[in-house]
Amino acid sequence: MIVKDKAISITEPVSGEGINKVKMAVLIGENEGAPNFYMRKFELEAGGHTPYHTHDWEHVVYILEGSGVLKGKDGGRRLEAGSAVLVAPNEEHQFRADDGTPLSFLCSIPKP
Amino acid sequence: MIVKDKAISITEPVSGEGINKVKMAVLIGENEGAPNFYMRKFELEAGGHTPYHTHDWEHVVYILEGSGVLKGKDGGRRLEAGSAVLVAPNEEHQFRADDGTPLSFLCSIPKP
Repeated sequence: MIVKDKAISITEPVSGEGINKVKMAVLIGENEGAPNFYMRKFELEAGGHTPYHTHDWEHVVYILEGSGVLKGKDGGRRLEAGSAVLVAPNEEHQFRADDGTPLSFLCSIPKP
Repeated sequence: MIVKDKAISITEPVSGEGINKVKMAVLIGENEGAPNFYMRKFELEAGGHTPYHTHDWEHVVYILEGSGVLKGKDGGRRLEAGSAVLVAPNEEHQFRADDGTPLSFLCSIPKP
């Protein structure tokens, strides 16, 4: 069993095309020996966003704090603390902290 | 994309041998078409616990609120809000709300 306290799960800045004011930490992943899927924590500063993109794996997400928008092909969906999200494989998506507040969430993916 | 607001994810009592004061909701699972793994939310009342048991799949856990103990073969590990946990396949484990407060957490599992 592995227990990682909050204090040792420090998010680090993520850079790349279409990414703005995003930090991330892998909470349970390769280093922890996760067999099938990985859990990451994302923190977006107010005004931050992940890239608007698509890929052939899913996201399973839980909104921890703040609020924002999940942008997709058919518009935006509101996100509030406690919301659970499934982004299916190959769906266009972007997480946006558009409300003038930070947005933090867990995002799990299948093991690459 | 599926967004389930907190208000529609109501936890329901879980019963069974070794289970006490536990409620659960499947946030992202079969009904949502999750391809590879499912995310559930558990709420333990003060004094509640899951069964002390083992199985051949893993748990990936995030503690949302409260504090408690993860009991295993080699004793107990403290759990606080923000802790991330990996229970590997075939490890004995039990989540316990032993601190006189409720304990809530997310627990993801591979698709059965």
